[in-house]
Amino acid sequence: MLIVQKFGGSSVADAAKIERVARIIAETYRDGNEVVVVLSAQGDTTDDLLAKAAEINPDASKRELDMLLSTGEQISIALMAMALEKMGLPVVSLTAWQIGLKTDCEHTKARIRRISTERLRRELDKRRIVLVAGFQGIDQFDDVTTLGRGGSDTTAVAIAAVLHADKCQIYTDVEGVYTADPRKVDGARKLDEITFDEMLELASLGAQVLHNRSVEMAKRYSVNLEVLSSYVKKPGTIVKEVVKQVEQMKISGIAKDCNVTRIAIVGIPDEPGKAFKVFMVLAKAKINVDIILQSVGKDHTNDISFTVASSDSQAAYDVISEYKDVIGFESISMDEDIAKVSIVGAGMISCPGIAAMMFEALSNAEINIKMISTSEIKVSVLIEERLADTAVQAIHKKFFSN
Amino acid sequence: MLIVQKFGGSSVADAAKIERVARIIAETYRDGNEVVVVLSAQGDTTDDLLAKAAEINPDASKRELDMLLSTGEQISIALMAMALEKMGLPVVSLTAWQIGLKTDCEHTKARIRRISTERLRRELDKRRIVLVAGFQGIDQFDDVTTLGRGGSDTTAVAIAAVLHADKCQIYTDVEGVYTADPRKVDGARKLDEITFDEMLELASLGAQVLHNRSVEMAKRYSVNLEVLSSYVKKPGTIVKEVVKQVEQMKISGIAKDCNVTRIAIVGIPDEPGKAFKVFMVLAKAKINVDIILQSVGKDHTNDISFTVASSDSQAAYDVISEYKDVIGFESISMDEDIAKVSIVGAGMISCPGIAAMMFEALSNAEINIKMISTSEIKVSVLIEERLADTAVQAIHKKFFSN
Repeated sequence: MLIVQKFGGSSVADAAKIERVARIIAETYRDGNEVVVVLSAQGDTTDDLLAKAAEINPDASKRELDMLLSTGEQISIALMAMALEKMGLPVVSLTAWQIGLKTDCEHTKARIRRISTERLRRELDKRRIVLVAGFQGIDQFDDVTTLGRGGSDTTAVAIAAVLHADKCQIYTDVEGVYTADPRKVDGARKLDEITFDEMLELASLGAQVLHNRSVEMAKRYSVNLEVLSSYVKKPGTIVKEVVKQVEQMKISGIAKDCNVTRIAIVGIPDEPGKAFKVFMVLAKAKINVDIILQSVGKDHTNDISFTVASSDSQAAYDVISEYKDVIGFESISMDEDIAKVSIVGAGMISCPGIAAMMFEALSNAEINIKMISTSEIKVSVLIEERLADTAVQAIHKKFFSN
Repeated sequence: MLIVQKFGGSSVADAAKIERVARIIAETYRDGNEVVVVLSAQGDTTDDLLAKAAEINPDASKRELDMLLSTGEQISIALMAMALEKMGLPVVSLTAWQIGLKTDCEHTKARIRRISTERLRRELDKRRIVLVAGFQGIDQFDDVTTLGRGGSDTTAVAIAAVLHADKCQIYTDVEGVYTADPRKVDGARKLDEITFDEMLELASLGAQVLHNRSVEMAKRYSVNLEVLSSYVKKPGTIVKEVVKQVEQMKISGIAKDCNVTRIAIVGIPDEPGKAFKVFMVLAKAKINVDIILQSVGKDHTNDISFTVASSDSQAAYDVISEYKDVIGFESISMDEDIAKVSIVGAGMISCPGIAAMMFEALSNAEINIKMISTSEIKVSVLIEERLADTAVQAIHKKFFSN
């Protein structure tokens, strides 16, 4: 098998950790597999480099930041190569430019355009373990770029895609994807399998296991993805297109997001185009709107409520207030004490009553629902922030009690 | 003018030093020059990286060591670029692969084969200050190499050569090339000019201002080289093919080398080929021999004395002892308490009596000469190690007293 493995910065933070990861890689190789490994920068390296940059110039150009930061992953691959050499294994480390990993020109958040398989394939054909610097690329001008958050995951998935790897293993500090946050919810279970779409919904709802870009890419190129622990040797969670449906598993996971603010606009004239104006104004200000609820008010007016990320709330409030006369509403209010709790599951498409089960669980826990939003594989509710953990616990018990 | 400037690791060791160097670069640029700057890794970066490597694998491959170490210079150029950006100057940092700096495959001590001027020229034409990572290159397989000791000096001279730069300025922590070590010899003077050949002799005699490889390259490609201080703003020493002869300056400098051992072989049969055998054995063992003296012994035998670097002395002693029967000598002895003191000057070719002046100075100081060696622009003597500083002082006074 051809296996791509990715290890994050905390897994290679010091010599001892590098040696532990080297043993995982060595075992995979000795089992007869072709192995490509993608590494992030060691522990605090990136922060240390950013601190050096900030001391010299807090407004440094993104091009030079990328030039600086990309050294971190290069250090990781060289050190890991040395650890594997010590074990007597054939190994070669390669940077982004050496494998022709081309991106667009968006420094600090570049997107991968293509990867040349020539060098990778040549090294694999020599039976070498290939270590690739994650997070980095080069653009059409041969300038160094970096891929932004979750960049090394994206590198791993992209390499798995171009090499048609049998597996892409993302090693993390958790054992896989859980039905809910195992540190907070009793009985939270690790999932053996989850679909790409479910994983995408969970990630966007705040479950930080994998960055959405890597999951999207894995889905697009049908990469067989596995999330597993670099500390505990056991199977993790497989992310794939279709999972075998376990009857009792009506949903895959529950997520909570407290970083939400609800904005309510009251008394908008019931005329065509007025609601549109609200969201056009927000779009122009580059503010993402999540859940939207429109209801009929009194005297031929409408009320519109919507949620935004808390970091955007003040900007949203200000920009709408500015257009008060144009939109013609009566009042605007903001509610920060709010949380979004969501259930995700590809199974709910074919299984009516899932939303009802969720609402029943909340009702039994005497939690009032402020807004509801549903998609094909997700149901989200807004509730008071202080009740969020209780809500997750109650819903988890309802779906996973047996 | 097109000026190439090189700054060493101590000159860019921290944010304050980077800003000081940035001001030197900025001034050169604002004077209307095209500027290419070659930088070394910051202060202890290389040692820190080597320590990390040693912890993981003391026998790491040279390829991976080069991959690791080359990050140091990349960090320097990115940080310096940020400092210049802060001053509002157009700047771009470039690594070895980005300027197509190709070397042979000798990892950790590669030699430059060629440099593509395309990217360098393009950036200069945009009126940008160009910062180049020193010490590094790439080989024919696109693997990262490093150039070994004095590598960044070599990078600077090579770039000056391919760009036909008007000047290549090597900034150091001394103000130029001195007639003798200014920390040890009263009245040591800074030279305004020195020839390539003199510089080569001085470097090989232990004056550590410039590495020989960079001087040889500068001589071959007629690069106008200047050694100057990054701390004090004044002209340094120009190194060039022919310098204008100052009448009083019969020699350019005095150097001392205590890293010398004399080996004496006594009682070699006076037959053809016997002396040859001694040096063939040493050459096979890759031991460099410096000064050689052959004298007639008793009973149709010869005595041969020669010097080697102290680090090679035991190996030289052992290999000759091993061939005792083949060579047929009587005894061999080693003398570590020895120093080589040399005077260097292109002027001595046309000025007889220079050697005599040196011997007179030593005689007046009651220092006994053990061996003498001369070349066109150099006279070296071996003396007792404990008298070396006194000898340098006495010779310096003789030649530079007025």
